[in-house]
Amino acid sequence: MTYRIAIFGSSGYAGGELIRLVDGHPDFEIAYLGAHTAAGRTLGSVHPHLRGGERMLESNDPAVAPSVDLAFLALPHGASAEPAMALLDQGAKVVDLGSDFRLDTPERYADAYGVRHPYPEELGRWVYGLPELHREAIATTDRVASPGCYPTSAILPLAPLMAGMLIESTGIVVDSMSGVSGAGRGVSAVLQFGAVDESAKAYKVLAHRHRPEMERALDDVAVDLVRLVFTPHLVPMQRGILTTIYARASEGVTGDDIGAALDAAYRDEPFVAIVDGSPETRWVVGSNRALISVHFEDRSGTVVLISAIDNLIKGASGQAVQAANIMLGLAETTGLPQEGWMP
Amino acid sequence: MTYRIAIFGSSGYAGGELIRLVDGHPDFEIAYLGAHTAAGRTLGSVHPHLRGGERMLESNDPAVAPSVDLAFLALPHGASAEPAMALLDQGAKVVDLGSDFRLDTPERYADAYGVRHPYPEELGRWVYGLPELHREAIATTDRVASPGCYPTSAILPLAPLMAGMLIESTGIVVDSMSGVSGAGRGVSAVLQFGAVDESAKAYKVLAHRHRPEMERALDDVAVDLVRLVFTPHLVPMQRGILTTIYARASEGVTGDDIGAALDAAYRDEPFVAIVDGSPETRWVVGSNRALISVHFEDRSGTVVLISAIDNLIKGASGQAVQAANIMLGLAETTGLPQEGWMP
Amino acid sequence: MTYRIAIFGSSGYAGGELIRLVDGHPDFEIAYLGAHTAAGRTLGSVHPHLRGGERMLESNDPAVAPSVDLAFLALPHGASAEPAMALLDQGAKVVDLGSDFRLDTPERYADAYGVRHPYPEELGRWVYGLPELHREAIATTDRVASPGCYPTSAILPLAPLMAGMLIESTGIVVDSMSGVSGAGRGVSAVLQFGAVDESAKAYKVLAHRHRPEMERALDDVAVDLVRLVFTPHLVPMQRGILTTIYARASEGVTGDDIGAALDAAYRDEPFVAIVDGSPETRWVVGSNRALISVHFEDRSGTVVLISAIDNLIKGASGQAVQAANIMLGLAETTGLPQEGWMP
Amino acid sequence: MTYRIAIFGSSGYAGGELIRLVDGHPDFEIAYLGAHTAAGRTLGSVHPHLRGGERMLESNDPAVAPSVDLAFLALPHGASAEPAMALLDQGAKVVDLGSDFRLDTPERYADAYGVRHPYPEELGRWVYGLPELHREAIATTDRVASPGCYPTSAILPLAPLMAGMLIESTGIVVDSMSGVSGAGRGVSAVLQFGAVDESAKAYKVLAHRHRPEMERALDDVAVDLVRLVFTPHLVPMQRGILTTIYARASEGVTGDDIGAALDAAYRDEPFVAIVDGSPETRWVVGSNRALISVHFEDRSGTVVLISAIDNLIKGASGQAVQAANIMLGLAETTGLPQEGWMP
Repeated sequence: MTYRIAIFGSSGYAGGELIRLVDGHPDFEIAYLGAHTAAGRTLGSVHPHLRGGERMLESNDPAVAPSVDLAFLALPHGASAEPAMALLDQGAKVVDLGSDFRLDTPERYADAYGVRHPYPEELGRWVYGLPELHREAIATTDRVASPGCYPTSAILPLAPLMAGMLIESTGIVVDSMSGVSGAGRGVSAVLQFGAVDESAKAYKVLAHRHRPEMERALDDVAVDLVRLVFTPHLVPMQRGILTTIYARASEGVTGDDIGAALDAAYRDEPFVAIVDGSPETRWVVGSNRALISVHFEDRSGTVVLISAIDNLIKGASGQAVQAANIMLGLAETTGLPQEGWMP
Repeated sequence: MTYRIAIFGSSGYAGGELIRLVDGHPDFEIAYLGAHTAAGRTLGSVHPHLRGGERMLESNDPAVAPSVDLAFLALPHGASAEPAMALLDQGAKVVDLGSDFRLDTPERYADAYGVRHPYPEELGRWVYGLPELHREAIATTDRVASPGCYPTSAILPLAPLMAGMLIESTGIVVDSMSGVSGAGRGVSAVLQFGAVDESAKAYKVLAHRHRPEMERALDDVAVDLVRLVFTPHLVPMQRGILTTIYARASEGVTGDDIGAALDAAYRDEPFVAIVDGSPETRWVVGSNRALISVHFEDRSGTVVLISAIDNLIKGASGQAVQAANIMLGLAETTGLPQEGWMP
Repeated sequence: MTYRIAIFGSSGYAGGELIRLVDGHPDFEIAYLGAHTAAGRTLGSVHPHLRGGERMLESNDPAVAPSVDLAFLALPHGASAEPAMALLDQGAKVVDLGSDFRLDTPERYADAYGVRHPYPEELGRWVYGLPELHREAIATTDRVASPGCYPTSAILPLAPLMAGMLIESTGIVVDSMSGVSGAGRGVSAVLQFGAVDESAKAYKVLAHRHRPEMERALDDVAVDLVRLVFTPHLVPMQRGILTTIYARASEGVTGDDIGAALDAAYRDEPFVAIVDGSPETRWVVGSNRALISVHFEDRSGTVVLISAIDNLIKGASGQAVQAANIMLGLAETTGLPQEGWMP
Repeated sequence: MTYRIAIFGSSGYAGGELIRLVDGHPDFEIAYLGAHTAAGRTLGSVHPHLRGGERMLESNDPAVAPSVDLAFLALPHGASAEPAMALLDQGAKVVDLGSDFRLDTPERYADAYGVRHPYPEELGRWVYGLPELHREAIATTDRVASPGCYPTSAILPLAPLMAGMLIESTGIVVDSMSGVSGAGRGVSAVLQFGAVDESAKAYKVLAHRHRPEMERALDDVAVDLVRLVFTPHLVPMQRGILTTIYARASEGVTGDDIGAALDAAYRDEPFVAIVDGSPETRWVVGSNRALISVHFEDRSGTVVLISAIDNLIKGASGQAVQAANIMLGLAETTGLPQEGWMP
């Protein structure tokens, strides 16, 4: 059977990738494309790289959308809670690519976002949609909060080590660099070519909201409270996140222990691989894969983990489709690229 | 049925794209991967972005390859004639992405390449594999010379106007800019990041071998002898060709005539579209599409045509698969991306 | 003596380069920095790469500026006529980097810009500030209209050939590619990194206002009326223009004649050089130089000229300083970089 | 008086920048340009962006060079010890941009480089040429080992905090990203545009030789033994290093203490500034400046320091000229750019 899919927030980068993935998915068909300021425009005028350019973008209001089996929400922070609840009421399954339902308690949400959550009772009900950690829960829910791009790149390497108590849960440094598409498609002076090209910079130092998201997700698997410091950087490329993580090995743990734990965790995963050397973002751009390398410094007992993902695919739209496949009982890899493009 | 495919020259950029396209093609399976200096290495060590990294690259010698239904040759200039003939002898259909069989006479070949062709009697037998012009001939041959990237971008806009005698056949200027992957994956000082990034340059001014190829292909459709001047430029991006063409309209021909002829030629083509405004290479990168815009300057009767393609897909590997589909009786669009990626 | 300099329009890219050049000029001192929306901000907040970040940007209104010896105007189209006249009244010499006084007659201005010029009687009085052509006139005027970036790249190669009647004055094609800084520092969706990086495109096809400027400037030196077709392209780099020009040689003219004429014209110029091969934009970025190469196709008598400049220096701020040096009786090369940066 | 300068290793990126800086230096004149494989070629064929292209590159052998006041060595690792000693014998002062004399003991050298030093007795005699730390020693020596690019970016922020015992001397993480020019101008597959553009990667994880150099230089100012973990990354840009450092504040130390110490250390330095927010590499590219920002996380007592330099100027050639100015008794800022270029 073919599932009817709605995409809200079609005009952004994640929205465009969702359309491309759903167009190419053998079991999905697009039943509705919603947008905010681009409502009323043709798809081709917004995403000239996609086919079917004559398709219209409609409103982001679920009330005017037809009934669908599953809806993806690729909306700005704070904008998805309301349509998500409406879509659930209409009987659709929902995968929210935004951050509205990623934290698990009203307190944590208020702490991270500085406002009260409009549906506090919902926070505990949404499943954090990282299939490699929560496959079973995803399979049985109708509401998935799809992880952020940086958290995906940090949680995948750290979670098995946390779960195995192989590293200390505090004093962790997560240092990431991202391509510019991670900042979204909004127009701003700091994202002009003249401001970005040939330059590197940190931003939101000690203040990025993906840090609480990482801690929340790792607390789910760790025995002790997780504390980390996170610095995101912007580098002049379109796509890709490279994350370098520093953690202290627990007493008596060796580099081999670390490597064995990650190998065991991901040996059978279709989209995660442990690599020799260290990964480059070009190896994953265009695919739904995450690559991870493991390094160990004996003299200080420091574990260095390096991960690479495509922020728009495994870090956003691909991961959302992966969760949707699970929710709908399809093979998890259906319609998802396992090969990227290079150069 | 599934067709067994061999790829010779697997380690380059065009070879990598062929592997990616064939891996994703529902009716093809890779039976053999040949390479030159990379023979004996794993696919993953050469193309880390592809899956099945444990696959081995073998020799480029057809004698050691198994029997296949169709072979793609992505070899340097001068290197494909011999293996092509051997593969034909073995009963395989052959699509040569190189330039060895693109010109139609020994004289033209000697003029362009400065050496005698090793199989002069073959030159008239190969079909120039531009499906939009030569679909029928491709369907019935076992040997296709797939067009060069620049020629594809120039011939598609010019051919219908030449055929209709709407433009003069001499005094044509073809001015192209290409991403760096067009220069191949060989290592050289002029292709280092430090030499390419943040710079633009022309190269092989008045001496590029794609000029004779363009003239030969257009002579096939033109009434009068075609003469053009071609300047290729290198610009700092990975993929994409943008070609701007200047021609003089024939006496009495209007801009509307020009537009109508191109619309008529490509209205039903799955991979070619005439666009308003003018195309950007990002609109086609990742897809097998060619986009063309038409402009007319009344005061001088100058026709300006602008085309955009992905040099590695419609300009190389995608076009080769398109021809292979036709040769094997498959739907022409099978396994070919109609949507690109952006950003 | 030290000349007091004002810069109006300090916040843009050309303004920033003017400040950098004037800061480093041994005979100039900045007496005033004017800006529009950035008025009231510090220099450091607008141009963090410049020293003296505590300097304030004031209004663009000349009435509130102190008396200066010379003022540079780096203002948007249409915005410089009024302050220019006010500054002349105050006794300052004026170099206008904008387009308000580049055309020579009210008719041509109205044709190019679609509006009447506010000071039509001024149009014939301003000197077109290309020192290599109009050095003497610049030396004796108090009002210079500094050339546009594309025109500089096209006029330098063409003017000596036009003057010598070595090429036909019609049927000329000027095909340029520019780094993105040429589009200015204004914020827009089409200049976002995500829209520009890894893409090439033409823009304002057959409609760019630098075409009339080129024709006007070449008419000054040509015997017959000059007619050309101009296509600007945007390529993903910050700076640099590469212009490729196609013209028909006059009857009996050889490639050697063309080369000799250009050599003779520029042999003694400090900022223009004829090069073997063809120039790359990186060779000039950071300097005030223009490099030109000459190519000749015998079979069609086509002259191909390729030029490279830094659009912000020889194409804007450097050329303006060059003119100012001449106006003030200084050595023409004072304070101007003859070496660029690479990589 | 004008000092006669020799540059050995003229053909690389650091060599090119040295030529540009020395050409523009009011008190220096180039007396000799040495090169290895480029010996016998003209400067213009190697560095087409520099003027005086007719100058010849000679051998890298000091025996054939004329007597000079000061020589810069921009040679590969291991290649400068011998010519350096010869030049000192000839009475020249020497600034070595390479790594041969940066470590202070034969043991540390053997540990880092795996071979015995050819002149072990020299190691203690060379001054580590970071003027902000060792100005007095530089003024009185004839032999300076100019710091590496990554060490410059790490030592400047850390040294004052180490000296003041404001941070712990172990558990420090130095995470850097560099433009590609830092890898030098040698030709290799991993530095091709196709391999670098649109990709980010770590390299030499836990194995880069700048880590011992950082520890050595910081040990000079720290009370306790310094231990750090260093990860260099390559990002797709030409120039610039952005370094993000994580350290634990000493017991009782506040963020204000940290900020005050850095302000005090660099308040009067011409080339170092503490900035609000966090620096971008574009703010320093083209200049000899280092910008540093300071961040403090209260809950974990983590100090985050971010620094930006131009790897070829403050990280190499500019810093070498800065040291040379001091050695020759000139004003330290002579001939050094305090303004960069942007965009």
